Amino acid sequence: MQDSKALKQKIDLAISKFLERRIEQAKEVSPSSELLMKNIKEFSLRKGKRIRPLFVVFGFKCFAEGQEDEIIKVSVSTELLHDYLLIHDDIMDKSNLRRGLPTFHKVYEKIYAEQNVSNPAPYAENSAILAGDILSAISSEPILESSFPDELKTKAVRKFNETNCQTGFGQELDILLELNENAKAEDVDLVHILKTAKYSVESPLYIGAILAGATDKQLKVLSDYAIPAGRAFQIQDDVLGVFGSEEKIGKPVDSDLKEGKKTLLTVHALEKANPEQKKRLLEILGNQSISMKDVLDARKIIEETGSLKHSRTLAKELANQALEIAKAADFRQEGKDFLISIADKLVNRED
Amino acid sequence: MQDSKALKQKIDLAISKFLERRIEQAKEVSPSSELLMKNIKEFSLRKGKRIRPLFVVFGFKCFAEGQEDEIIKVSVSTELLHDYLLIHDDIMDKSNLRRGLPTFHKVYEKIYAEQNVSNPAPYAENSAILAGDILSAISSEPILESSFPDELKTKAVRKFNETNCQTGFGQELDILLELNENAKAEDVDLVHILKTAKYSVESPLYIGAILAGATDKQLKVLSDYAIPAGRAFQIQDDVLGVFGSEEKIGKPVDSDLKEGKKTLLTVHALEKANPEQKKRLLEILGNQSISMKDVLDARKIIEETGSLKHSRTLAKELANQALEIAKAADFRQEGKDFLISIADKLVNRED
Repeated sequence: MQDSKALKQKIDLAISKFLERRIEQAKEVSPSSELLMKNIKEFSLRKGKRIRPLFVVFGFKCFAEGQEDEIIKVSVSTELLHDYLLIHDDIMDKSNLRRGLPTFHKVYEKIYAEQNVSNPAPYAENSAILAGDILSAISSEPILESSFPDELKTKAVRKFNETNCQTGFGQELDILLELNENAKAEDVDLVHILKTAKYSVESPLYIGAILAGATDKQLKVLSDYAIPAGRAFQIQDDVLGVFGSEEKIGKPVDSDLKEGKKTLLTVHALEKANPEQKKRLLEILGNQSISMKDVLDARKIIEETGSLKHSRTLAKELANQALEIAKAADFRQEGKDFLISIADKLVNRED
Repeated sequence: MQDSKALKQKIDLAISKFLERRIEQAKEVSPSSELLMKNIKEFSLRKGKRIRPLFVVFGFKCFAEGQEDEIIKVSVSTELLHDYLLIHDDIMDKSNLRRGLPTFHKVYEKIYAEQNVSNPAPYAENSAILAGDILSAISSEPILESSFPDELKTKAVRKFNETNCQTGFGQELDILLELNENAKAEDVDLVHILKTAKYSVESPLYIGAILAGATDKQLKVLSDYAIPAGRAFQIQDDVLGVFGSEEKIGKPVDSDLKEGKKTLLTVHALEKANPEQKKRLLEILGNQSISMKDVLDARKIIEETGSLKHSRTLAKELANQALEIAKAADFRQEGKDFLISIADKLVNRED
């Protein structure tokens, strides 16, 4: 299998080239358009795993060979979509940091402050809404401008738009979960399916596979792989968010608890807790001023209610399910190997 | 020529049918998705001129006959795009009313308040950002799912996305104009070209014409018509915004002045004003508590500086330019008649 680091570099180069052309076009419109596009490029090229573009490329390699440069160019679309969603999510969550640097609206707050705008924050938020809107508007262009047959491009773009729409539904659900004290495991699971499994795994695989001419039956196999793999990943991520080290997860170990994030871990714990445990856990969740003692107490309750074990067991089951599908799939070896390697990592992920 | 009122009804029915299908799909996802889609439908079907869908239909009729039902279905795309932009614009402008009813975020503020959410406004704004995002995501679907050849659909969607992107640039420019005390007529004109001429006239005509198989040379003629027609319309609209009656313009006669909206009228007046007039006009523009006396003073200065005459003359020139292009165009009669009738209305528009 090709070195995925080398492939990631090619993907970064393709993102850079696509946005460089867009900067040139924006320059012809006005200096403010050019500035917006340049900041979009800076944001898009921040360090990231590029997992969605990789799924596009290997989704293609499951069913066709060659044309690697062309499918890499197409894969840029999933990264643009991701950047637009992050920019808008950060506005909604009032976040200050993204990928270790200021969020998009915070970047513009600085720009407007330097231009002596007296109340820069709302103007900066508006520019960030517009930056996301513009990214969404051009996000399917890498598919449309590629050299694949028009019929396949039409089909791929329709899947792409559907995912964009469903991720919006997922985000709306996620916002409402925050308000819902009686959130159930199924609710959390639906958010995982929409915002992680479909969005980050199934849809990118489909884009690549559709352009490689995959049949509907073959696409179905990709779904059978993508949904459990995505769910396993998200459950594990949420476990790490509470039980991981700051070093490993790249954010403070108390941030998920402070945010009161509804995860399978917390929802299951609240369901299984005795009245005393439930009261204590609710004191901690969403509380901005928790101590390390509170974190340890929350971990203890999550363990004692069997929720940690439940999450770990379910994640492993789902990861194994994805692995079995990948192993049994009648796909080209290069694509299949990638799917297996990802599922393998999920099965053996330390959490 | 077909009665455009009957056509408008068919367009409304097509919008309704498209969104009805989307509600059914959203229902399968979750009750909150269904609710969001239902509110999107309510917003989209509010009273409007449907001028963009009409341009799609007649852009098509300039070059092809028949297939009216199909091009009407396609025309829904421009209305979805418009609704998404209005929803996001209303968030940015903190507006409360749209088409005589609460703006989208105000609708959701009421919904969340009724659900006893303690601080509904930010949640409502987030739902409105998401509603706009979802509308943008599905806005090209009416083109993609139509029965026109894939090659033409690809071309039409690319124009559509480009317009979506350029309108974003126009909105960013418009926001910055508000902050710029030295805004020039060219700056205002660029906003008119991006946000009115290209967005409301050129792009819809192109979508229809492309699907009818128009050549690039024919598309160029549509641009030659659309840009002056769109500019004329916007200049006249801004004149009406200050000199019209509340009854005619559907908003208070002082609202553009209170907003401090940068128009050709005000920018030209500030350029030509003597120091005293300039001081007085700047006192009035953007001032939330102006009286009818202030409105009359502003009108007087705009007249005395020759700015009213300048705007009217330029609008008439541009409208005549569009009319001449339409008259000389070698298009099918039905399409041509529509373009002429619109330009005629602009030439003879009372302002």
